Amino acid sequence: MLSEQTTTKEEITGWLRGLQDRICAALEDTDGKARFKEDLWERPGGGGGRTRIIGQGNILEKGGVGFSAVYGETPEKILHALKLDQAHFYATGVSIVLHPVNPMVPIIHMNVRYFEMSNGVSWFGGGIDLTPHYVDEEDARYFHTRLKEVCDRHNAGYHPEFKKWADDYFYISHRKETRGIGGIFFDRLSATEAFTKTDRFRFVQSVGDLFAPLYTYFMRKNAQLPYNDRQKEWQMVRRGRYVEFNLVYDKGTKFGLDTDGRAESILMSLPPQAQWHYNYQVTPGSQEEKTQQLLKKGINWV
Amino acid sequence: MLSEQTTTKEEITGWLRGLQDRICAALEDTDGKARFKEDLWERPGGGGGRTRIIGQGNILEKGGVGFSAVYGETPEKILHALKLDQAHFYATGVSIVLHPVNPMVPIIHMNVRYFEMSNGVSWFGGGIDLTPHYVDEEDARYFHTRLKEVCDRHNAGYHPEFKKWADDYFYISHRKETRGIGGIFFDRLSATEAFTKTDRFRFVQSVGDLFAPLYTYFMRKNAQLPYNDRQKEWQMVRRGRYVEFNLVYDKGTKFGLDTDGRAESILMSLPPQAQWHYNYQVTPGSQEEKTQQLLKKGINWV
Repeated sequence: MLSEQTTTKEEITGWLRGLQDRICAALEDTDGKARFKEDLWERPGGGGGRTRIIGQGNILEKGGVGFSAVYGETPEKILHALKLDQAHFYATGVSIVLHPVNPMVPIIHMNVRYFEMSNGVSWFGGGIDLTPHYVDEEDARYFHTRLKEVCDRHNAGYHPEFKKWADDYFYISHRKETRGIGGIFFDRLSATEAFTKTDRFRFVQSVGDLFAPLYTYFMRKNAQLPYNDRQKEWQMVRRGRYVEFNLVYDKGTKFGLDTDGRAESILMSLPPQAQWHYNYQVTPGSQEEKTQQLLKKGINWV
Repeated sequence: MLSEQTTTKEEITGWLRGLQDRICAALEDTDGKARFKEDLWERPGGGGGRTRIIGQGNILEKGGVGFSAVYGETPEKILHALKLDQAHFYATGVSIVLHPVNPMVPIIHMNVRYFEMSNGVSWFGGGIDLTPHYVDEEDARYFHTRLKEVCDRHNAGYHPEFKKWADDYFYISHRKETRGIGGIFFDRLSATEAFTKTDRFRFVQSVGDLFAPLYTYFMRKNAQLPYNDRQKEWQMVRRGRYVEFNLVYDKGTKFGLDTDGRAESILMSLPPQAQWHYNYQVTPGSQEEKTQQLLKKGINWV
């Protein structure tokens, strides 16, 4: 059976590298001005990456599309979590965060990754989530509908589970608000009786392939919308919350910083600027207030 | 003997409340424009605080001087760390972070605090550290000299220990740089054979009393210095590092957020704005490069 063919790490790595290329090309094409700059880096313990940074574009103010494939001795923290004494690991993935100029264009994040260890354990993880500075309900429905379609093509159980996972994961506890409107998040998708490793890979490929058409849709649709100083200030406040989430809660960021990862590549997710106002209050009845009220878990957008 | 009198939590609390008043008055007086706004808050589990925020001043762009006195059942995290099953706690302190307008004026942080538990354990903690956007070596010497004088008045062993503690504590591992030029940091100063509780309190009082004359000296001395756009941008980058330290490493911030503390009071330490540039590089031979080279542990400034 086709689905029982073994998907190798080489195949996955090659596909992810190509995904980075395709996404960068689509983003440059849609932005029309900005071009990615590439930094190649090597990891002292093994492997390396291709960090690609974009900025000062017509639509994209700052962002990155990173690819990495690293390997070596498994860090203590992971061994401990997996209750293992010793093992080698291989990890590869593509990570994206884009901060647009216009507050009417949402911030987006995607990550797709593969991890395997010398003891035979392997899994996929990833997700896409959207952080609008202003929640437009039609855009939110569109976003979640597209994600649901991709999930449903693979398994009817994926979307309910991974949508909830995103709601729970992208949560800023100390603010009692979600980072944005969520999306999907999944981790440790291994082969099971119900899913082969190839099935899991096909799903991750569908998620990765969705990114460029999905985000360029919002770029094209919203980048020409007018905005004023108050809306720009609100964008800065929301970017501040994005910083808070990434530095306080994001597991990938924490793990990367804890294990002496390449700081510039890990922190490419941070916005070009952010602001903090003590006890910022939204005006009753404003679009900012409406957005704040929609930053909560469990909204069924579809 | 005088030093064996018991210092009560009421006495400590009253003194700290007065310290907040005196520091706020001195800062307003030196700024000449900005006035503190006060937020009184109550902690659901017991106690509360007086958060005072200043901003848009002649010299101070954003900052806070907070006082709190909270009590109740000891959070699980502390009980676990102290290997205790159950206890009540009382904690009071003054915390300050000030972000100036002019990049030639340093950011400053001070915290003095007292903690006791129903099982009889009690201690003081605190410190002052300076984060210049541009390290002026004369200012740095002045700062450390004043701290050393205060320490030496109480015990010759304090300054070497607490200076090193600050170097180690205010360290941004993932950047391999210190937050600023350090200062002093101390924690869990309990009564011992060598120091009574009153001795410890007198030391903490000296540290607290040093704050206003020390920082208003820098305000007066540097607030009129000229600066250009590049220097303002560098200030934004340094503020970004300040955010990284506070959200990733600062134990007080983490503990406060973890235990559902008042987010606005905890995060009053964040700057009004910050910037992140991918892989920011300083110009060789510049003042920015000189500063970066001085952001390391173990410099003997005195």
